[in-house]
Amino acid sequence: MSKIFINPTKEQWDHIIQRPVLDSQPLEKTVSGILMDVKQNGDAAVKKYALQFDNVALSELQVSKAEIDEAKALISDELKKAIQIAKDNITTFHAAQKEDIQKIETTAGVVCWRKSLAIQKVGLYIPGGTAPLFSTLLMLGIPAVLAGCKEIAVCTPSDKDGKVNPVVLYVADLIGLKNIYKIGGVQAIAAMAYGTETISQVFKIFGPGNQYVTCAKQLINKEGIAIDMPAGPSEVAVYADETCNPAFVAADLLSQAEHGADSQVILVASSQAVLDKTTIEIEKQISVLSRKNVAALALANSRFIVMENEDAAFDLLNAYAAEHLIIAADNADELADKVISAGSVFLGHYSPESAGDYASGTNHTLPTNGYAKAYSGVSLDSFVKKVTFQQLTKDGLNNIGSAVKKMAAAEGLDAHENAVSVRLKK
Amino acid sequence: MSKIFINPTKEQWDHIIQRPVLDSQPLEKTVSGILMDVKQNGDAAVKKYALQFDNVALSELQVSKAEIDEAKALISDELKKAIQIAKDNITTFHAAQKEDIQKIETTAGVVCWRKSLAIQKVGLYIPGGTAPLFSTLLMLGIPAVLAGCKEIAVCTPSDKDGKVNPVVLYVADLIGLKNIYKIGGVQAIAAMAYGTETISQVFKIFGPGNQYVTCAKQLINKEGIAIDMPAGPSEVAVYADETCNPAFVAADLLSQAEHGADSQVILVASSQAVLDKTTIEIEKQISVLSRKNVAALALANSRFIVMENEDAAFDLLNAYAAEHLIIAADNADELADKVISAGSVFLGHYSPESAGDYASGTNHTLPTNGYAKAYSGVSLDSFVKKVTFQQLTKDGLNNIGSAVKKMAAAEGLDAHENAVSVRLKK
Repeated sequence: MSKIFINPTKEQWDHIIQRPVLDSQPLEKTVSGILMDVKQNGDAAVKKYALQFDNVALSELQVSKAEIDEAKALISDELKKAIQIAKDNITTFHAAQKEDIQKIETTAGVVCWRKSLAIQKVGLYIPGGTAPLFSTLLMLGIPAVLAGCKEIAVCTPSDKDGKVNPVVLYVADLIGLKNIYKIGGVQAIAAMAYGTETISQVFKIFGPGNQYVTCAKQLINKEGIAIDMPAGPSEVAVYADETCNPAFVAADLLSQAEHGADSQVILVASSQAVLDKTTIEIEKQISVLSRKNVAALALANSRFIVMENEDAAFDLLNAYAAEHLIIAADNADELADKVISAGSVFLGHYSPESAGDYASGTNHTLPTNGYAKAYSGVSLDSFVKKVTFQQLTKDGLNNIGSAVKKMAAAEGLDAHENAVSVRLKK
Repeated sequence: MSKIFINPTKEQWDHIIQRPVLDSQPLEKTVSGILMDVKQNGDAAVKKYALQFDNVALSELQVSKAEIDEAKALISDELKKAIQIAKDNITTFHAAQKEDIQKIETTAGVVCWRKSLAIQKVGLYIPGGTAPLFSTLLMLGIPAVLAGCKEIAVCTPSDKDGKVNPVVLYVADLIGLKNIYKIGGVQAIAAMAYGTETISQVFKIFGPGNQYVTCAKQLINKEGIAIDMPAGPSEVAVYADETCNPAFVAADLLSQAEHGADSQVILVASSQAVLDKTTIEIEKQISVLSRKNVAALALANSRFIVMENEDAAFDLLNAYAAEHLIIAADNADELADKVISAGSVFLGHYSPESAGDYASGTNHTLPTNGYAKAYSGVSLDSFVKKVTFQQLTKDGLNNIGSAVKKMAAAEGLDAHENAVSVRLKK
């Protein structure tokens, strides 16, 4: 079913770790047209596209208080309890990312520091479709609130009757988000990027989406609106050695595969035996899954690799830079030191990706497509700017003044020099 | 000379804080062509464009050890001393940004943490032109080295004789950078983004440049190579009240104005008297500057604003979100609390922007064009990814397992559920 490689040489790695090519070029014209239309025609254009693409005639774009109350009544106590556990853990982990101001005296009389200041207006996009990702709203909304963002807009598409998924509304209400809009697709990204009569413009847009949404985020990013990160299909890489439990490994591979036919699944096993045992477990487990057809499609594109050399295995995994990396080994702790590039790492036999997807506390909005080589996942940092401050006394300026003047002169900038001289002359 | 506004109403602000429109669309075709050519033809294409645009026939692209030694001999001891002071302060400030790993037990048996891991391959672009910005190499190279980036490529154009500015070479050598290439412009961004026979591909590209370089960075960013931040002309905003020294304020405004005719200069004064005194000082100081023509052009586009209400003044400054914000007031400390969006802030009468440009220790690579509303300046963070890790014991998984299963079921993802069940069944 999947492609199998036994101790591939470095020359083969580029081929093995290749992602599907995501060429948004063909979509750009369509997406640009929608962006421009919403920019110029605001709510009217948003409603037009909701009718055209989602087959829904919206009178109001904003979800009302009554709709939220109605949704809340539909959620079982059991699900509410589960969401509360997730919320608590996500809050604990992200709250610990708050930084105290640390004043550094770099030279006597020269004090510098950084201060985290919330991005005032942010937009969160929550896709609709087959699996309503209320968990993504937890992952984006909780740090936005913790960071102190003043205006937090949530856009998510409604169904054909103009209803938004009730769990999404319940979660929004639980974490204190008031501005929820029934808008999906490119028109949602446009509305948040440019503002309309109903939605105010934001400075940064977060959240996953289909290829049209991804393309829209790229285009508005080029215009200066920040985005969380570039996007691609979800991925897991599992490193499994002889100490692994093949049934666990199989379950983890399948939980990634069920996300979509384009999901990326990679197994790096320390031996052929581990690979074989895992394959048998996959066959056993897949038959009972409700999304088994989707999972089978993803597995057809998966890569199962035997790497008998442990260091080479991690070199390959670092070159791949998986969104999720599971290390299924007794000494996962030690092996963790070999990780250089990944989005989020799951250590040992009892840390399935699902734990991080929902409730361990880490964020599940992570870099895919090898972007983990340069990008971090979403964290509290994603919702703040770290602004530098400096305060010099006259003595402080005197201590570094001649260095500043000398360097400014060497760069040919004498007004820079003068800004020091005029102060020290006095 | 500049545009003057007295207590402008909020309706006027949008107009006042407007930046020049930076439309890279007309350049995209040219820039894309060069990117594609370098991607396909490597060094040969790079050399072709060096000849075409910079009028230099290069045999070797990499700066040799002999060239570095030759350059070092040209630097005066005084300049070396100045650079050392800057290096020490920049190192001190950025080293303090290193984060210790903090393990958080979000639930009993569920331990999560973040680890900063260096981006392995980064590229630093240092423009040539009228003012050789060796200070920018300090600002980018020092945190890259501190972060532990394994491969650091520096690209900077040579002159017509194939020589690179000696101070740039001296600084590169001082901070331990070995891979310096005589490449400028779009071809430099392309070489770092795609790799050539001489230059290896990088994962993130840093550094300022002209509109072609900026456009090239935008385009390769869309292809998944990370960049430091979007770029625009340099800016300063000064808030000055009755306690200011108008000569200091004038010197600060001029030090920004001399950067280029497109530099953005804004004065927000607490009274007409402060504005008038500052204007008189500008007239006095400008006449002796070597770049007075450039400064005069920038001042022609500057905006001088009287805001008698202090809170309104800072609302306006936050809406502008200046790259550099100077608070020239006795109570700068207190006023600093009103800052919500800015790149770097200079407090009090003895903290000129030049201090931060060169030697206070803060980074001078900062968001312009209002991007400070959502973007931070360059810091140690810019050279790392913060990778999350989680390790659950069996009890830990048991503690959050039912929450995970419940949420996975509500999202319709039963393989996610099964990844927990298979472990807890055992």
